[in-house]
Amino acid sequence: MFRSRWHYALYFYPMKEEIISIGDELLIGQTINTNAGWMGQQLNLIGAGLERVITISDSRDAILNTLKDCLNRADVVLITGGLGPTKDDITKHTLCEFFHTRLVRNAEVLARVEKFFLKRGRTMLESNRQQADLPEDCTVLPNDFGTASGMWFEKDGKIVVSLPGVPYEMKHLMEMQVIPRLKTRFSLPVIVHRTIMTQGIGESFLAEMISNWETELRNAGLSLAYLPSPGIVKLRITGKGPDKEALEKKTLEFEQRLLPLIEKFHFGFDNDLLETTLGDLLREKKLSLVTAESCTGGYIAHRITSIPGSSDYFLGSVISYSNAVKIEQLGVDSTDLNTHGAVSPEVVEQMAKGVIKKLHARCSIAVSGVAGPDGGSDEKPVGTVWIAVAFDDRVVSRKFLFEQNRERNITRSALTGMMMLRQLILGTI
Amino acid sequence: MFRSRWHYALYFYPMKEEIISIGDELLIGQTINTNAGWMGQQLNLIGAGLERVITISDSRDAILNTLKDCLNRADVVLITGGLGPTKDDITKHTLCEFFHTRLVRNAEVLARVEKFFLKRGRTMLESNRQQADLPEDCTVLPNDFGTASGMWFEKDGKIVVSLPGVPYEMKHLMEMQVIPRLKTRFSLPVIVHRTIMTQGIGESFLAEMISNWETELRNAGLSLAYLPSPGIVKLRITGKGPDKEALEKKTLEFEQRLLPLIEKFHFGFDNDLLETTLGDLLREKKLSLVTAESCTGGYIAHRITSIPGSSDYFLGSVISYSNAVKIEQLGVDSTDLNTHGAVSPEVVEQMAKGVIKKLHARCSIAVSGVAGPDGGSDEKPVGTVWIAVAFDDRVVSRKFLFEQNRERNITRSALTGMMMLRQLILGTI
Repeated sequence: MFRSRWHYALYFYPMKEEIISIGDELLIGQTINTNAGWMGQQLNLIGAGLERVITISDSRDAILNTLKDCLNRADVVLITGGLGPTKDDITKHTLCEFFHTRLVRNAEVLARVEKFFLKRGRTMLESNRQQADLPEDCTVLPNDFGTASGMWFEKDGKIVVSLPGVPYEMKHLMEMQVIPRLKTRFSLPVIVHRTIMTQGIGESFLAEMISNWETELRNAGLSLAYLPSPGIVKLRITGKGPDKEALEKKTLEFEQRLLPLIEKFHFGFDNDLLETTLGDLLREKKLSLVTAESCTGGYIAHRITSIPGSSDYFLGSVISYSNAVKIEQLGVDSTDLNTHGAVSPEVVEQMAKGVIKKLHARCSIAVSGVAGPDGGSDEKPVGTVWIAVAFDDRVVSRKFLFEQNRERNITRSALTGMMMLRQLILGTI
Repeated sequence: MFRSRWHYALYFYPMKEEIISIGDELLIGQTINTNAGWMGQQLNLIGAGLERVITISDSRDAILNTLKDCLNRADVVLITGGLGPTKDDITKHTLCEFFHTRLVRNAEVLARVEKFFLKRGRTMLESNRQQADLPEDCTVLPNDFGTASGMWFEKDGKIVVSLPGVPYEMKHLMEMQVIPRLKTRFSLPVIVHRTIMTQGIGESFLAEMISNWETELRNAGLSLAYLPSPGIVKLRITGKGPDKEALEKKTLEFEQRLLPLIEKFHFGFDNDLLETTLGDLLREKKLSLVTAESCTGGYIAHRITSIPGSSDYFLGSVISYSNAVKIEQLGVDSTDLNTHGAVSPEVVEQMAKGVIKKLHARCSIAVSGVAGPDGGSDEKPVGTVWIAVAFDDRVVSRKFLFEQNRERNITRSALTGMMMLRQLILGTI
């Protein structure tokens, strides 16, 4: 009888990890905990299973209790924060207490801290010198970018690592010290991810559309996650097991079967952004892009120019928030404006054609809509948006009814406009 | 003997809160957990003490075990995530198991979900209908922005609230339902906050500038936090104690003494955005605004039009990413462009004047710079930005050297431009 792939995965030592993020500023929302997310990405890439992230304050009791709990569950606990030179930073002392050890001044680290200050021409205080006081019973992980060293403790076969909370110092220590050490210390399973990007379809419709495929995928031992954000749903296929090549082959096979099912909505993979995918297409085909924006107010231009090198294809925009700008700069017919209103196919198509002519481009995206919260009517409620895209002489326009929320209407309009232009260029609209 | 103000605060019931963030995507770092930070801010504002945030996967065991642990420590547990219509969303079922209750179809919620779909002209699936299946033993918190309802459970004097993970749905439910209910349910200490917004000065320079004032503020029993983000530093004064009126009076007194010290950099209070402050000034003075943007690529127009009602003063923009658009649309002199380059006072001032003339406005902001990562030179390194603001016939331009990071350069350019225009209108530049 065939034994499932998951069975084999059990032969690997399943390293369980937890992260403790220490910092009052994280709990009161003054700083967003981006460290934990980044560390989760890195651990996931090596097939390590991050099971929990716990954010607590700079409090001795919270640190001691949480660390004890974590070590009851996990093999590896990574701690960030609380290693600075000021009085509210107590992680180092608390770890000494936990591991029944004491601080000793580390000559090598002291020399590095002194050099650090000398290089910056800054006066060194006793509190800075104390950054070289480190627990006797730990492996010191040298920090080239700051004065707080990392600390690697081992006890009863479990590992506790303490890292500074400053993101670039933590990342440096993770990449140079922690990840390489974990890789040699544990036999990690192979993990394969593939993310497929879609635009213009909701999560539940997508699930319905691909439900047979999803069942087969799950039966084959792979898993699937839906990751929605306004206008975008990412589909992430994950495979775990002993054989990387076989996993990649199987994932690719399911990906290839998925793509025809979602052809109309698919635009990229993994970390692709629509603005990058569209930009690459424009660059490849040597096309130029301009936008004519009313309710999006420059947001499409902003998304496009947020990509380095977008000047290769993006020439500029006319943001026509007022009707006068629509008429004078984009050549929109004032009779059409009066008859049909600014949110109409007539006006948005004239905007798309007008901006191409005005700025001498080959492609354009034009948007006019009711972003809200005001300005809605029975006929054109908040969320009503007309989008037109043009490529040389071809113009296509579509009407959408998005949401009640201004920000989301703007975001979805921008994404939809970029998607429509991509389809027009590819001839699939 | 005088008893400290803090003594009185102890008579208040100290509500302890924990947050459970559910989602595989958070652990593998595909989504950054911004929800927990925002919720922490809101809880802090009402004087509630958030003690812990625990991020776990969409796993039944993890949810059950974590919730049990949290309820051993906290009075209130707020849960986000896992309420979507797809198979990997299991929070609702798991909470039913935890509270020994069952799902029943809620007619009121079903009607709202049906209306939600009808309004959007979308077909409703059985998985959408199941969004109306809710635990029998909970108070349903209606969600006006989505199909996942909030759930409020009470058991043994403790409260558990489950909210959707979609940020704007979660925020809506927190603001309309959760915060008001917590306020009536617990006697929270009086806490007074006042935030003073500054633009154009770094955290450490600001600290140096107001250090005497800060010492006196702390001696008076108030506390101060510096909240930096690119281009903006918020100063938040906090007072805690029994007497709201006295706290407010004292906070106001210190605020009044602070303002003259930071006059050049101060633009608003609390939740004020620079785009709102500038917009209100333009509306009040019946002035119109346009922008001419090169390296900011429409981001200033986007920020300004993100404010509802901005059509009262904002007419539009010319995004002149290419030099041809600068010359043809904004009337920039091609000799000046060749002689001085696009990132120069000559060009940016002509952009500011040109866009006023072109779009018939009274005020403008124009930006041209090297956003990076490419395009820098020894003379004009990445981060070099020229900004000009114009008001009728007056034009002022300034050179800045921001950062290495493209996104931060764009953000800081936009904020600086809005601040400069405000100063020009107020006659303080």
